[in-house]
Amino acid sequence: MRCEVVAVGTELLLGQIVDTNSSWLGERLALAGADAHFQTKVGDNQARIVQALRIALDRSDAVVVCGGLGPTQDDITREAIAEVMGVELRRDEAVLDRIRAMFAQRGRTMAENNARQADVPEGATVIEQRLGTAPGLICPVGPVGPDGHSEKVIYALPGVPYELYEMVERAVVPDLQARMGEHATIVSRVLRTWGEAESSLAEKVSHRLEALDAVGNPTIAFLASGIEGIKVRITAKAPDEAAARALLDAEEAELRAVLGDLVFGVDDESMEDAVAALLDAQGLTLAVAESVTGGLIGSRLTAVAGSSGYFTGGVICYDSRVKYDLLGVPEGPVVTAEAAAAMATGVQKLLGTDIGLSVTGVAGPAEQDGQPPGTVFFGLAIGDEVETVDVRLPGDRDRVRQFATISVLNLLRLRLLARTSPHP
Amino acid sequence: MRCEVVAVGTELLLGQIVDTNSSWLGERLALAGADAHFQTKVGDNQARIVQALRIALDRSDAVVVCGGLGPTQDDITREAIAEVMGVELRRDEAVLDRIRAMFAQRGRTMAENNARQADVPEGATVIEQRLGTAPGLICPVGPVGPDGHSEKVIYALPGVPYELYEMVERAVVPDLQARMGEHATIVSRVLRTWGEAESSLAEKVSHRLEALDAVGNPTIAFLASGIEGIKVRITAKAPDEAAARALLDAEEAELRAVLGDLVFGVDDESMEDAVAALLDAQGLTLAVAESVTGGLIGSRLTAVAGSSGYFTGGVICYDSRVKYDLLGVPEGPVVTAEAAAAMATGVQKLLGTDIGLSVTGVAGPAEQDGQPPGTVFFGLAIGDEVETVDVRLPGDRDRVRQFATISVLNLLRLRLLARTSPHP
Repeated sequence: MRCEVVAVGTELLLGQIVDTNSSWLGERLALAGADAHFQTKVGDNQARIVQALRIALDRSDAVVVCGGLGPTQDDITREAIAEVMGVELRRDEAVLDRIRAMFAQRGRTMAENNARQADVPEGATVIEQRLGTAPGLICPVGPVGPDGHSEKVIYALPGVPYELYEMVERAVVPDLQARMGEHATIVSRVLRTWGEAESSLAEKVSHRLEALDAVGNPTIAFLASGIEGIKVRITAKAPDEAAARALLDAEEAELRAVLGDLVFGVDDESMEDAVAALLDAQGLTLAVAESVTGGLIGSRLTAVAGSSGYFTGGVICYDSRVKYDLLGVPEGPVVTAEAAAAMATGVQKLLGTDIGLSVTGVAGPAEQDGQPPGTVFFGLAIGDEVETVDVRLPGDRDRVRQFATISVLNLLRLRLLARTSPHP
Repeated sequence: MRCEVVAVGTELLLGQIVDTNSSWLGERLALAGADAHFQTKVGDNQARIVQALRIALDRSDAVVVCGGLGPTQDDITREAIAEVMGVELRRDEAVLDRIRAMFAQRGRTMAENNARQADVPEGATVIEQRLGTAPGLICPVGPVGPDGHSEKVIYALPGVPYELYEMVERAVVPDLQARMGEHATIVSRVLRTWGEAESSLAEKVSHRLEALDAVGNPTIAFLASGIEGIKVRITAKAPDEAAARALLDAEEAELRAVLGDLVFGVDDESMEDAVAALLDAQGLTLAVAESVTGGLIGSRLTAVAGSSGYFTGGVICYDSRVKYDLLGVPEGPVVTAEAAAAMATGVQKLLGTDIGLSVTGVAGPAEQDGQPPGTVFFGLAIGDEVETVDVRLPGDRDRVRQFATISVLNLLRLRLLARTSPHP
């Protein structure tokens, strides 16, 4: 099954938006077992969208087109698909009702041009819209075969990433797999690591890379993911999902044996998820004192549903005065290990929690207290024990703040882990 | 002059690398005055690269192909171009000498397969390599016209971004402009808005859309950008940059006349930049009390360099106890307008700032205080004046928190704006 992607939008061609949808789709379609040989970007011009779709249909079995399903005059993907199919658009009342209901729910009246989003090429199946007002479309092209499927198919999806992702999982992948009939299942799993460079991880697992090279299945790839660390992806192919998952399980065990606590999560598990699980299991409460990170740590911790069970709150002590007055930091320089320790114990006491976590440092561009940008101190108070860690982080203001956030959460994770499995 | 981009690399199709080169090239080519209607991504397969190049040459005057010029066996862009041109590759000794010299300079010996990078299709002109070992190529296609230029042209460039950028500026843009003779410059500007749906913005500016439709220059497009609001992009084409910018200025004034304070920024200006500029200009200090947003507001405000000038800090009052004990919220339900008001005045007083800003609400998935997810209250205390706003926000936990953050910052922006231009 050859499947390609056509991304619609003049803003993509002009570089005003980087086309991350195509990248995501490329990865997702490959995982679903489809061969993806081409991707095309085309502007908001009906003749050129039609041309791009025809070229894609000519050389592939399925085409995923994303973007151009909005309510405005320059959203013409619906018209282009109808032209390629050689059919008319008809207004779908069920789709229209859902659009009206969405507006009503937000206390707004639907503008007349939103009704265009209910226009569906004759013969197409609607992928019900759930997160936005644009429905997706499954558009058959060519004669229907004995298996009940058309020869080729166009999937039309909205360009808003989270709407696109949801429809791909719910409707596109299942439809593609039904069309493929018997197929190999490709499944992958990502081990997420923090604390070592890619080359060093590769050395640690080199014996596995060599062993797998000989067999060819599963495979291992490293994905450097910036402030999210290095991902180690295992991909396995097997006749069915259970067999593929068994391969993944075996390889994960091999890798964990050498990577140990460098692995903080699997697949979508974030560093804050890992911390959340540990705090939850140990019944501990946490408060944060954030200077240079300005609320980033709190915002990541509270991104986890149920975080109110262990996260009490914190103090954003951006101005030094707040450190002195609210947290009891001794007056003087605040980019120091002593200040980090006082912040951690201060917020622990102020909010009455088991744990206090703190960050103070210099994000830049200017230096502070004679310290250059990238200088950061962490403080961690668990019960009566207090420790500090100082690091020098690379990058610009944004990266220093992001690196500080994940690094201090990782410090907390490692200390909580050590409590669960104490070494002699 | 129609010019399109072909990006080569299987890793681009599989989503392992996001294709930012094409985005950059799209913007750069548009600025140089070329019309860019298509971009294609293709894997490391000679037949398919040849196919993509032929399709591109068929409908455009110039094709920029990037990637596939490395030394390894899967780098086959050179071979594909030679096939399209119908010529042989010949080894260029001057290019080879430069590659050898680069290795020598780094104290290394050139590996034999690096010599492949000196292979040049007959008739092509070399763009001397300066930053990496791969040279660029200017490859004439079709008969030479009376102006001394071939009918069409392929520019081949390395996929390493900084090598690509340098060659585009030094060799590709000058060559393109020489081919165009007299050329046009395209410039665009983005007005960033918050507070109205795309369809409603389109209705407000419909008179401009109609007026510009008749002329065709400048053009207006709407870009829905999720939690960053709706962008209104103006694009102008003119003989030179000054003339293009004059068109943008005139159209921006027309749009601002109807959009008013819906516009919070231009191009890369964020909501927090807008708030920062207003606080700075008015010499006011700010503190935040964050419940449901958990630190998001603080993290956005402190993303702006220089934010210590007006942002004092805040309290992340996730647990109700912190609201009662630290901020003086009356004991009882905390997802209420009264709690939001008490949080705003409480943090204003605790941190001694001019302004206190607060958010309390339900992000979900579970309801709280009998309120469904999406229920959010904002509190704003400026001096002695306190107001509250309640909203019902759409989406999942993450979106509710993000929407709450930008919405409350927008509320602050509007109130600060009103202080600068008081209405009678």
